[in-house]
Amino acid sequence: MTKYNLNSDMAEGYGPWTMGDDDGLLQIVQSANIACGYHGGDHNIMARVMASAHQNGVSIGAHPGFYDLHGFGRRQMQLSLSEIENLIAYQLGAALAMAALVGAEVSHVKPHGALNNMACNDADMAMAIARAVKAVDSQQIFLAPTLSQLVKAGEKQGLKVAEEVFADRAYMPDGQLAPRSRPDAMIHDSAIALDNCKRMIGDQEIKALDGTILKITAHSICVHGDEPSAIAMAKTIKSGLDDAGFTSTTLPEMMG
Amino acid sequence: MTKYNLNSDMAEGYGPWTMGDDDGLLQIVQSANIACGYHGGDHNIMARVMASAHQNGVSIGAHPGFYDLHGFGRRQMQLSLSEIENLIAYQLGAALAMAALVGAEVSHVKPHGALNNMACNDADMAMAIARAVKAVDSQQIFLAPTLSQLVKAGEKQGLKVAEEVFADRAYMPDGQLAPRSRPDAMIHDSAIALDNCKRMIGDQEIKALDGTILKITAHSICVHGDEPSAIAMAKTIKSGLDDAGFTSTTLPEMMG
Amino acid sequence: MTKYNLNSDMAEGYGPWTMGDDDGLLQIVQSANIACGYHGGDHNIMARVMASAHQNGVSIGAHPGFYDLHGFGRRQMQLSLSEIENLIAYQLGAALAMAALVGAEVSHVKPHGALNNMACNDADMAMAIARAVKAVDSQQIFLAPTLSQLVKAGEKQGLKVAEEVFADRAYMPDGQLAPRSRPDAMIHDSAIALDNCKRMIGDQEIKALDGTILKITAHSICVHGDEPSAIAMAKTIKSGLDDAGFTSTTLPEMMG
Amino acid sequence: MTKYNLNSDMAEGYGPWTMGDDDGLLQIVQSANIACGYHGGDHNIMARVMASAHQNGVSIGAHPGFYDLHGFGRRQMQLSLSEIENLIAYQLGAALAMAALVGAEVSHVKPHGALNNMACNDADMAMAIARAVKAVDSQQIFLAPTLSQLVKAGEKQGLKVAEEVFADRAYMPDGQLAPRSRPDAMIHDSAIALDNCKRMIGDQEIKALDGTILKITAHSICVHGDEPSAIAMAKTIKSGLDDAGFTSTTLPEMMG
Repeated sequence: MTKYNLNSDMAEGYGPWTMGDDDGLLQIVQSANIACGYHGGDHNIMARVMASAHQNGVSIGAHPGFYDLHGFGRRQMQLSLSEIENLIAYQLGAALAMAALVGAEVSHVKPHGALNNMACNDADMAMAIARAVKAVDSQQIFLAPTLSQLVKAGEKQGLKVAEEVFADRAYMPDGQLAPRSRPDAMIHDSAIALDNCKRMIGDQEIKALDGTILKITAHSICVHGDEPSAIAMAKTIKSGLDDAGFTSTTLPEMMG
Repeated sequence: MTKYNLNSDMAEGYGPWTMGDDDGLLQIVQSANIACGYHGGDHNIMARVMASAHQNGVSIGAHPGFYDLHGFGRRQMQLSLSEIENLIAYQLGAALAMAALVGAEVSHVKPHGALNNMACNDADMAMAIARAVKAVDSQQIFLAPTLSQLVKAGEKQGLKVAEEVFADRAYMPDGQLAPRSRPDAMIHDSAIALDNCKRMIGDQEIKALDGTILKITAHSICVHGDEPSAIAMAKTIKSGLDDAGFTSTTLPEMMG
Repeated sequence: MTKYNLNSDMAEGYGPWTMGDDDGLLQIVQSANIACGYHGGDHNIMARVMASAHQNGVSIGAHPGFYDLHGFGRRQMQLSLSEIENLIAYQLGAALAMAALVGAEVSHVKPHGALNNMACNDADMAMAIARAVKAVDSQQIFLAPTLSQLVKAGEKQGLKVAEEVFADRAYMPDGQLAPRSRPDAMIHDSAIALDNCKRMIGDQEIKALDGTILKITAHSICVHGDEPSAIAMAKTIKSGLDDAGFTSTTLPEMMG
Repeated sequence: MTKYNLNSDMAEGYGPWTMGDDDGLLQIVQSANIACGYHGGDHNIMARVMASAHQNGVSIGAHPGFYDLHGFGRRQMQLSLSEIENLIAYQLGAALAMAALVGAEVSHVKPHGALNNMACNDADMAMAIARAVKAVDSQQIFLAPTLSQLVKAGEKQGLKVAEEVFADRAYMPDGQLAPRSRPDAMIHDSAIALDNCKRMIGDQEIKALDGTILKITAHSICVHGDEPSAIAMAKTIKSGLDDAGFTSTTLPEMMG
C-alpha cells in the first residue's frame, strides 16, 4: 500500500474534565474515534470535537465503550450478548445524531477499551458488536484490530472492515498485543515505532517480539494523544511515513 | 375530529429499578414516549419496551430529558442553547438507533419533565429543541403541549407538530397547566377526565378552571401509568372515547 | 441459642425509584442493612429509612457495595485492595453521618452483592474490607456469611463478627451457597425455610443439599423484602421462630 | 493578625480525569478542601490527596457540593432544606471516614460551588448546611466567606467559624463577590492580589471596587490551583505574606 490512515481516540473528557490534546491530534491524524458518553465524553464534548474534526478534514468514528464512567471503560464487565448489542446501538446512534447536528458524518465505529479487548478474543461478543453496528447503520466502516475476532465478525456481518495496527505496542507471535504487564509491551522510542509502522503499512506485516513475521492487512494505525510524548510520537510517525512516500488519507477514502 | 391519540411516558426504569406499568399502558395507548437514558431509561430498557411497543402496534417516540438521573429530569437546570441542542440530539440519536436495533421506528419526539415545562414558556429554549430535532431527523413529529412555545417553535422549524392535551390536569385561562401547588391542579375523577377529553378532542376546546373556553388543536391526550389509579383512568378514557365514536390511532396515522 | 436476629437489605431505591417494601420489613426484622449510595440508595433515602428503622427499634447497618449503580452492585468488578478499602470506608462514613443526622447509630456493616460474594471466597479482599471497617470504626459489628472468608477476616481484625445464614437459600456440602444456576438453589416454600431456620438457630447447624450436616455459629438470618412472597416468607419465619420459643433481638443486643 | 491561612480546593479529579495541580498546591497552602465525590473527587482520589496533605502538614477539610458530577457542582439546583442537610451529612461523613482510613483528620468543612454561592445569600440554606455539619461533627471548623449568611449560620449553630476571603476576586461595596459577568471581577495581577491579601489579613479590611472599606474578620485566604497562572499567584501571595512578616498556619492552629 502507499496510502495509510492514522486514527486516535478523542473527546474523552467529561463535563469539566479534559483528557488528551484533541486539537493537537486533529493536526496529525485523519480519523478521530469519538467517545460517546458511556466511558467518557458527553454530548457537549462530542459536538465540539466532531465540529473541529470536520473542519480539519478528519473523518469521524463512534467509539463506544462499556457504561462505566468511573473506570473509563477499562474494566472488564460481564454482559449478555443482547446487552452488548444495546450498548453499541445506543452509543452509535447518539454519535450519528451529534454528527448530524454539527453538519458532519460518522463513517466508522471502533469499540473502546475493555470492550474492544474482550471482543478481540471472544467471537460471540465480537459478533454482537458487529450485529448492532449493522442494524443501526450497515454502511459504517468497522475499525478492528488486525488478526482479531472483531475483524472476522465484521466480515461475517458484511461490514466494510478496516484493520488496525498499533504504533506503540509490541505484538506476540500469535498476533495478539503483548500484555501491558510485560516490560516490552509498550514502544517508547519514536524511531522504532516509525520503523514498525513502515513495515506494517509498507510491507503489510508485523514483526512479533520473538521475530515471527505475521502477514496482515493494515488500513489504519492507532496513535495516542494523552501525553505530550504520545503527540510527539504521532508527529514523528506522520512525517516519517510522509517522507517515505506514503500518503495519509481518511478512513472512508482508504476503504473507498 | 373523530380520531384521537393517547400517549404515555414509558421505559422510565433504570438498571434494576422499574417505574410504572409499561405492559399495561401498551394495551391502552397508541403512542409511547420512551425515556432515553438521561433522566431515566437505559439502553436495555429502551430496547425491551420499544420491541414491546412495536409488537403492540404502538408508535414510538423519543422522550429526551435533562441529564439528571437522580432528579428524574424534574429539576430546573440552566443550560445554554447549544447545550440544549446537544442534549436533544444525543438522546434522539440514541432512540433512533435503539429502534433500528429492534426493527422499529421512532416517529415522534416529546421533551420530558422540567425541560418540557421550561420550554413551554421559553421561546429560545423551545427553538433550540426544535432545531436539534430538525437537524437529526426532520421527519419527526414534534409532540408539544397545545398553546405552548414548543408548538410555535416546531412550526417555525417546519416540523410536523402534534398538539397535546392532558387528561388529568386542569388548565388556567391562559392555556397553561394549573400549577401543581393548586389543590385543583390534578383531576382525580375519571369521569371528569373523560368529559374533558371528549370536549378537547370532539370540540377542540379546553374549559379552563374559571370557565373560560379556549379554542385549541388537539391531536393527542397524555395519560399516565405510574399508579394503578392512573392506569384505571387511562382505560376509562380509552373506552369512553371509543364508546363515544372516536377512533384511536397512532401519531403517524393521526398526522399522516 | 434462644435468641435470633433477622436482617434485611433496605433503602435500595434511588432518586425517584423504589425497591422493596421497607416499611413492611421494618415490622418484621430487627436489623436493617442500609444501601449507601453506590449500588443503590441515596442520601435522602438513607435518611428516611434510617429514621424509620430507629423509630421501629430496628438496629442499623451500613451496606456498602460496588460503585455500580446501573448494575446494582451485582456485577463482578476487579479492584485493587486499596480501592476496596477506599470503597468501604467512603460508604461506611457516609452511613455513620446519615445516622448521626437522624439521631440514630450504625452498629453493623454488611457488604452487598458481588462485593460480598467475591469476598466470601477471597481472603485478601475480605481482609481489605475488614481493615477498612476497623480503620473507620472498630466498634462495628461485622455481619458476614457463616463459613466464609469474611468471618475469618473480621476475626483477624479483631472485629465483633456476627455470622449470617440465609433463609431462602440452599447450601452446598462445603458451606457455600448453592449457585443460583442450580434449580434447587432457592427455597420458595416458607415452611421449609422456617424448618431450616429452626435448625440453623436452634441447633446451630446447616443441612446441606446432599444431607451433610455443617456445624455453624449463626447469629442472624437474612430475609428479603423485594417481592410480596419474600415479605410473606419473612413473616412466617418470624412468627414461626417466636412460636418455637426463640426471641428476636437486634444485632447489638445479640452480640452483647 | 500576624497569622494567616491559605486554603485551596483539591482532589477535584474523577476516575481517570485530573484537575489542577494538587501536588503543587500542597507545597503552598496550609489547608486543603477535599472534594467528596458528588461534584468531583472519588474515594480513591480522596484517599490519595488526603494522605498527601497529611504528610505535608496541610490540614484537611471536607468540600461538599451539589450531587452534579457533570456540572461540577457549579449549576444552581433547587433542593429542600432536608435534602441540603442530607447532602452535607453524606459527604462530610464520607470525608471523615476517608481521613480515618489514611490516618488523618478532617478539621473543617467548606461548601463548594453553586451550593456555597447560593447559601451565602440564603439564610435558610446556610442554616441547613450548618445544622448538618453540627449534627455530624460539632467540632468542625466551618469555613465560610466573610460577610455571608454562612458565617451567621455557623455562629448560630455554635460552630467555630473561620472567615474566608478570596485572593483573586474583587468585592462589591456590600461585601459580595463581584459577579463573574463583570470584566473587573477577577484579579489577574499577582501584585494586586498580594496587596489585597496584605490589607485583608493585616488590616482586616476589604477595599471594594468602588473604594468602600469594609471591616472584616479574615482567617483564611482562598487560592486556586487549576491553572499554572493560579499556582504562580498562590506562590506570590504566600512568599509575599511571609516576607511581610505574616506567619502561615493551618486552620486548626489558626482557630486554636
